[in-house]
Amino acid sequence: MKSLYAADIRDNQSVDGLFLVAAKNHGLTKGGNSYLTLKLLDRSGEIEARVWERADDLARGFDKNDFVRVRGQATLYQGKMQIRVHDVLRVEESKVAAEDFLPKSAFEPDAMLEELQAILRTIKNPHLLALVEACFADQELMHLLKQAPGAKTIHHPYISGLLEHTLSLLKLILKVAENYRGIDVDLLLIGGFLHDIGKVYEFSFERAVDYTDKGQLLGHLVMEVEMVSQKIAAITDFPQELAMLVKHLLVSHHGAYEFGSPKLPQTLEAVILHSLDDLDGKIQAIQSLPEKEPGSRWTAFHRAYGRSFYRKALDENQEE
Amino acid sequence: MKSLYAADIRDNQSVDGLFLVAAKNHGLTKGGNSYLTLKLLDRSGEIEARVWERADDLARGFDKNDFVRVRGQATLYQGKMQIRVHDVLRVEESKVAAEDFLPKSAFEPDAMLEELQAILRTIKNPHLLALVEACFADQELMHLLKQAPGAKTIHHPYISGLLEHTLSLLKLILKVAENYRGIDVDLLLIGGFLHDIGKVYEFSFERAVDYTDKGQLLGHLVMEVEMVSQKIAAITDFPQELAMLVKHLLVSHHGAYEFGSPKLPQTLEAVILHSLDDLDGKIQAIQSLPEKEPGSRWTAFHRAYGRSFYRKALDENQEE
Amino acid sequence: MKSLYAADIRDNQSVDGLFLVAAKNHGLTKGGNSYLTLKLLDRSGEIEARVWERADDLARGFDKNDFVRVRGQATLYQGKMQIRVHDVLRVEESKVAAEDFLPKSAFEPDAMLEELQAILRTIKNPHLLALVEACFADQELMHLLKQAPGAKTIHHPYISGLLEHTLSLLKLILKVAENYRGIDVDLLLIGGFLHDIGKVYEFSFERAVDYTDKGQLLGHLVMEVEMVSQKIAAITDFPQELAMLVKHLLVSHHGAYEFGSPKLPQTLEAVILHSLDDLDGKIQAIQSLPEKEPGSRWTAFHRAYGRSFYRKALDENQEE
Amino acid sequence: MKSLYAADIRDNQSVDGLFLVAAKNHGLTKGGNSYLTLKLLDRSGEIEARVWERADDLARGFDKNDFVRVRGQATLYQGKMQIRVHDVLRVEESKVAAEDFLPKSAFEPDAMLEELQAILRTIKNPHLLALVEACFADQELMHLLKQAPGAKTIHHPYISGLLEHTLSLLKLILKVAENYRGIDVDLLLIGGFLHDIGKVYEFSFERAVDYTDKGQLLGHLVMEVEMVSQKIAAITDFPQELAMLVKHLLVSHHGAYEFGSPKLPQTLEAVILHSLDDLDGKIQAIQSLPEKEPGSRWTAFHRAYGRSFYRKALDENQEE
Amino acid sequence: MKSLYAADIRDNQSVDGLFLVAAKNHGLTKGGNSYLTLKLLDRSGEIEARVWERADDLARGFDKNDFVRVRGQATLYQGKMQIRVHDVLRVEESKVAAEDFLPKSAFEPDAMLEELQAILRTIKNPHLLALVEACFADQELMHLLKQAPGAKTIHHPYISGLLEHTLSLLKLILKVAENYRGIDVDLLLIGGFLHDIGKVYEFSFERAVDYTDKGQLLGHLVMEVEMVSQKIAAITDFPQELAMLVKHLLVSHHGAYEFGSPKLPQTLEAVILHSLDDLDGKIQAIQSLPEKEPGSRWTAFHRAYGRSFYRKALDENQEE
Amino acid sequence: MKSLYAADIRDNQSVDGLFLVAAKNHGLTKGGNSYLTLKLLDRSGEIEARVWERADDLARGFDKNDFVRVRGQATLYQGKMQIRVHDVLRVEESKVAAEDFLPKSAFEPDAMLEELQAILRTIKNPHLLALVEACFADQELMHLLKQAPGAKTIHHPYISGLLEHTLSLLKLILKVAENYRGIDVDLLLIGGFLHDIGKVYEFSFERAVDYTDKGQLLGHLVMEVEMVSQKIAAITDFPQELAMLVKHLLVSHHGAYEFGSPKLPQTLEAVILHSLDDLDGKIQAIQSLPEKEPGSRWTAFHRAYGRSFYRKALDENQEE
Repeated sequence: MKSLYAADIRDNQSVDGLFLVAAKNHGLTKGGNSYLTLKLLDRSGEIEARVWERADDLARGFDKNDFVRVRGQATLYQGKMQIRVHDVLRVEESKVAAEDFLPKSAFEPDAMLEELQAILRTIKNPHLLALVEACFADQELMHLLKQAPGAKTIHHPYISGLLEHTLSLLKLILKVAENYRGIDVDLLLIGGFLHDIGKVYEFSFERAVDYTDKGQLLGHLVMEVEMVSQKIAAITDFPQELAMLVKHLLVSHHGAYEFGSPKLPQTLEAVILHSLDDLDGKIQAIQSLPEKEPGSRWTAFHRAYGRSFYRKALDENQEE
Repeated sequence: MKSLYAADIRDNQSVDGLFLVAAKNHGLTKGGNSYLTLKLLDRSGEIEARVWERADDLARGFDKNDFVRVRGQATLYQGKMQIRVHDVLRVEESKVAAEDFLPKSAFEPDAMLEELQAILRTIKNPHLLALVEACFADQELMHLLKQAPGAKTIHHPYISGLLEHTLSLLKLILKVAENYRGIDVDLLLIGGFLHDIGKVYEFSFERAVDYTDKGQLLGHLVMEVEMVSQKIAAITDFPQELAMLVKHLLVSHHGAYEFGSPKLPQTLEAVILHSLDDLDGKIQAIQSLPEKEPGSRWTAFHRAYGRSFYRKALDENQEE
Repeated sequence: MKSLYAADIRDNQSVDGLFLVAAKNHGLTKGGNSYLTLKLLDRSGEIEARVWERADDLARGFDKNDFVRVRGQATLYQGKMQIRVHDVLRVEESKVAAEDFLPKSAFEPDAMLEELQAILRTIKNPHLLALVEACFADQELMHLLKQAPGAKTIHHPYISGLLEHTLSLLKLILKVAENYRGIDVDLLLIGGFLHDIGKVYEFSFERAVDYTDKGQLLGHLVMEVEMVSQKIAAITDFPQELAMLVKHLLVSHHGAYEFGSPKLPQTLEAVILHSLDDLDGKIQAIQSLPEKEPGSRWTAFHRAYGRSFYRKALDENQEE
Repeated sequence: MKSLYAADIRDNQSVDGLFLVAAKNHGLTKGGNSYLTLKLLDRSGEIEARVWERADDLARGFDKNDFVRVRGQATLYQGKMQIRVHDVLRVEESKVAAEDFLPKSAFEPDAMLEELQAILRTIKNPHLLALVEACFADQELMHLLKQAPGAKTIHHPYISGLLEHTLSLLKLILKVAENYRGIDVDLLLIGGFLHDIGKVYEFSFERAVDYTDKGQLLGHLVMEVEMVSQKIAAITDFPQELAMLVKHLLVSHHGAYEFGSPKLPQTLEAVILHSLDDLDGKIQAIQSLPEKEPGSRWTAFHRAYGRSFYRKALDENQEE
Repeated sequence: MKSLYAADIRDNQSVDGLFLVAAKNHGLTKGGNSYLTLKLLDRSGEIEARVWERADDLARGFDKNDFVRVRGQATLYQGKMQIRVHDVLRVEESKVAAEDFLPKSAFEPDAMLEELQAILRTIKNPHLLALVEACFADQELMHLLKQAPGAKTIHHPYISGLLEHTLSLLKLILKVAENYRGIDVDLLLIGGFLHDIGKVYEFSFERAVDYTDKGQLLGHLVMEVEMVSQKIAAITDFPQELAMLVKHLLVSHHGAYEFGSPKLPQTLEAVILHSLDDLDGKIQAIQSLPEKEPGSRWTAFHRAYGRSFYRKALDENQEE
Repeated sequence: MKSLYAADIRDNQSVDGLFLVAAKNHGLTKGGNSYLTLKLLDRSGEIEARVWERADDLARGFDKNDFVRVRGQATLYQGKMQIRVHDVLRVEESKVAAEDFLPKSAFEPDAMLEELQAILRTIKNPHLLALVEACFADQELMHLLKQAPGAKTIHHPYISGLLEHTLSLLKLILKVAENYRGIDVDLLLIGGFLHDIGKVYEFSFERAVDYTDKGQLLGHLVMEVEMVSQKIAAITDFPQELAMLVKHLLVSHHGAYEFGSPKLPQTLEAVILHSLDDLDGKIQAIQSLPEKEPGSRWTAFHRAYGRSFYRKALDENQEE
């Protein structure tokens, strides 16, 4: 486990820690000496570093995308923290805890998965229950579900974020369904479970969250329809209308053409699923926005939502 | 109480009932005889009527917008029901039950208001509670709230529809708030209570739901800010920041500029209020859409949402 | 084969022909006599009809959606042709040629299919060729492909329209590919072949072209990805990247989110496929628009394109 | 009064002047020496500064947002002017003329207010005149009106800019009204006077123009409706229809939903007010755009209007 | 001069007047008798007519688009006025005053043209003055300008409407220019004069206002650039920059791409011209909208502006 | 001919080459010494340069926009290549080959023009052929056509790019026309030839591609209508309808209002021209995008198309 994170490094601090090398460039000082410009990364963020001495020697020992142990001194330079590196040494991936280098959910994935399974096993429709169990039985899928992020940037953009969002949405569905008559809760739950599950293939998330080629060219929506199609095909006597309704929930869950849904929500459950999915994502995103600047009641600007948010002084009282 | 409603009249039925005259036009048959074309209305809908005999005599006895007792015979004409009128007689408004002529909520307004007040009195913030009580104490406001429709056409477009929607939204807020930490429930409840309250002035709803001039030129959003401003001014020591946050909920509750919100939701509570308000309206609207045609699984086209909705055969099982 | 089509009936003509009953309504004349209002249909269009005598008797013999033999007299009534019916008799579906009641392509489906197969068998990539052959071997698919329309209204809206459009597009692809270097023609051909193939399930086209429930809720784009997924899964060693590229062509072929593509075209071939598909559809649609009014150089208004088109007098010379 | 402005400083010039400290950061030279990076501001713009000597000593004497006296030498560094600071000293706010640090109108606020009052006192409608006088009698309002800017960036973004714009608009209204019959000039004048008056609360403008929290969450449009509501309530017998028409002018003056008007202009006067307000703002904004580069006929790019403007050589002749 | 206009015909009135035949259709009564359905037109509007007797005889005497003298009796039929025709007779075009059949400006074209010329001759720039005189010298152009409508439907849609709008705009320009410094009034005047002059070729307006083929395919904007290009080419030493600025005014005067301007206004004068052109059109359009229904304070719905307008009771007082 | 291009310079390389000075700024080192910051340009791209010694002396010898001979040493500085200049000397424009400093087409302009003329001389319509010959006879036009770029950035943004695009489009038109009946190929060819010809006046392209003032204020679309108008006027008996159709092709060739077409394509040929023009531009643009980073299958982001493109590994095989 890492003992020092990039975000915690302060001016004048003596540094000794593990980082991922996100960029490595050579330079020449005006005096003609070689030096290195590095960008170091861990799950808390990035930090700049400079190697002014023994640059050529040290440079031979590691590459971009390697994990390294860095020793040096922190300095504030033009308002940004920078490490003046004394020594840098490559470290084997096997000696490193991956979760130190990617942000992750505040909740335990195994516990979340257990809770999610318990909720989904309350489904009464035997066909939908069979579909749920078929997914649980797919070990690779469950393995990926425990790790996948909810998004690259917009909401739940961290390891296990997909599972955290899915679980929160299922609980929200149960609450909301109590308030109305005539909602097919089983359908809503299966929709809540599967609406983003294609994200396990849409993102790569070993050293950083990024789109896979498949994710970029097909998208999670289409990939999860393929997967669900396959699982349903393997279940005996799965009713055709029911299959169509499940797939419609996936196909329409972005709610509008401009957000990449090829069909608008056209069942009551599809309308509700889109609305609650959107709400759950927004609540997480807004609550985790940093302040615009220390002490400000305004958050940083959220690009996808196109605004900052105001946080009232009242909040503290409320949460007691 | 009316015993016969326009929507229930069948081919060849003998008709004797009370209606509102929505249109009254004179015509001449090719043979040169006078006749009357009427449009009759009650809360179930409209029906065409024709007076072929004694047209001039009977016409003198009533006008457009009068209530009348009509006797005659129903006939299907070119696929639409029509009354061949034998007699028509003006009836005093005092002898008529207004609710027979406007659709109304399936729920009792007094009971709904009581439940709404009970929920709002759980608010802990003393200033917001004072604001709530100031509204309850405004008898004219409460009187109008019990009657006002939720909209002209989009959702809850019937007498007491505003109250029904407001109550449903408050209950939904309570459910959703349980699912998250860090939400200011008191603010959300006051926002849910007041977000549409200006509709009591936006619509006239004596004989039909229509926009008032004020409603058309200012809108419920602006009128309710004025009203809330006034009530807050009368409460001692109401904190300025809190007043701003309450008004922001009103000002932003349509969620987007194109729906007439002069400001986007910029607090977590404003984002949630808009989302749940929108969802509650949509659920009511979709559930009350008639079928496209008898036996169809598709509903009639909803103009504001730009689509029809599919209703699965599964619905029945679900609701047991 | 029908000898008389609705569109050819002229004023005062004596009528004896087969039609589909698209609407059937009862009425009462002012004198109290029963009569029938009918809407009769064949592939050339619709015509109104009235049964003034023996209406009740004749009405018992047939229903809406039946095929009937109608005898009577044509009359121009308020500028529209109408049949004054003397006799009407139900006809068994087996005695009727379905193609008389739906418009169809000017080209022979078997010949078109043969040409299409010849073109696709020029594909050199063995995996894509295997996919093509797997489709050809699917007899139900080929059967439907020969019949399915290209659309409900926008372009190629008639029996075998899908095949006609697909073939024309493949030929266009071959031409355009000659003009550029670096285009993967095999990919373009497979994309041209499969881009609309889901329409065989999107539409029902027995008595009229209409959307199926699946078509409305999932769309041809998603349904064809499912189908292609399944076919590819059955081919040994189909390269994953290639599968992704084929599906990307389907997923993006509408070219923009607002037209229901969940992904924008992101390969050169996807950009070209979208462009040529769009162009081929537009050429057919514009060329088959009727005149705005007889003798006008302007076509009727095309709703989807939002305009009329001007046809120059030069056209004739040009085509010689 | 300041004798030296940031924008006038030239290469190699010896500097001695008063500035506002907009940013202050510490750094370490490669040789390990402390230095300071400053951003200095006055109403003419910003300039960079560096303290290479006695950095720690001098830094203790002042903070960000302080006014300071700076002595040093100007140098062009990478194409931008920079001050090499020899000495820096905190100066009491009371010893500083605020207007030196914020751009301001070229016109005298008292004279503008007088002219504005004279125009508004030509209003004949006694109720509207009473409303005008109630505003004039509100000393805090008049005090703020003399200072408030017209906007943060788009047009009239300087001290007294709101008053300058309001006065120019009133004069324009008088001119335009002469050209048409049937315009209610009194209404237009009151609308011109009040349409932006909420900006006195929307912006803070002590050391820089910025949005207040209220301005950001409610907007000037809603705040001025509240204010006008209050003033009207205090006037005896103010006609309800007139109040509605005045408020409609405020509520609709941005002209379109996407610019934050919750209602479109729905009276002739509202249409005219929006049009002239927009025009007056644009003329000021375009005329005060700097050149794209010295000698160019094109102005700098205006972000809100999305373009540069061409200024013809003819201008000079024209203005004689 | 016509003595009776369609809009003035009342129930039971005996009719004898001149009309344009806008539609002529034959029909058969249920009893088998021939009758005619006519649509008759004059500048006040349309009226329906029926010929029940001697239909075949009378029909032979006139055609669609002929002028006719009609005698008969007016009747209200299903809420619309209708003439029961006794006699109808073709009238030579030469015996008819064209202006009786097209709505026209309330102002005298010759007087308007004179005023327009006087204003334009105040232009000081000799090149622009030469351009103005070249236009005045073009007799066909002046002849068409006196007659052309301002639009088909949106604003000034009547004979001489273009001239009325152009003159009103020039006067508005003079007023507005007084309010600002640095505006090139000569440029604005020439732009005001020429901005819509291509409409003389865009519309045909003999018997009704309609688009010409050229108008539909090229538009007035492009056609007037061609015309102005030609006129400028014939003027010695017309400065190139000035020509560019004049054409830019034409090319950008619709103000936005979506209204068919290929370029946005990029000079101060182009911005002002677009704004005032738009305003003048809107004022005329709103002022001439009919009431929604008799006695209503709301106007009929204006399709292009997407709304109705409210007319206050105050208007009368104001206009005295 | 240049022997060394900016893009080919490597770390530590000794530099001696001709460049265009795109920027020249003075600076002072912390030690108070003068230095120069230069941006040097040739057709391969830009490179930074610094003059640390004899800066004031050397600076006197050349200016921004001069051609210079530069000698020095290349160094990688902060990841970007930079020249440490030892000597710099102004070079006469006459001694420089302009094409070394602007990117140009890979094809020979004279050969392209010849091919283009051959194609256009296949036009059968004598009037259109006359128009083509009139353009060929315009030597200044032909001279400019051989040099003009296709655009500033979007597609074919290099010397002779307009000609390359025009020729490619003409060939594409010939191919596509073979696939359909009823297309007027002559019209399409003339449209393909002239649709962008106004770009010869829209851009200046001596030392860099930029918009001319005319290009910015009028646009190539309007300027080429003017030019074609003039040429047609000089041809005897050119049919008016044909002239209108040719101009319509120009006026509508951007295909949509938002792309600056004042009219939508309203003939079959205009629809096809827009589609093929768009396709040819996109193919060129996508094929010439650089990789996102070395070895990536994704291209750099294309701003106008709003995306990156994926290039499959299959490409190589395909092109053999």
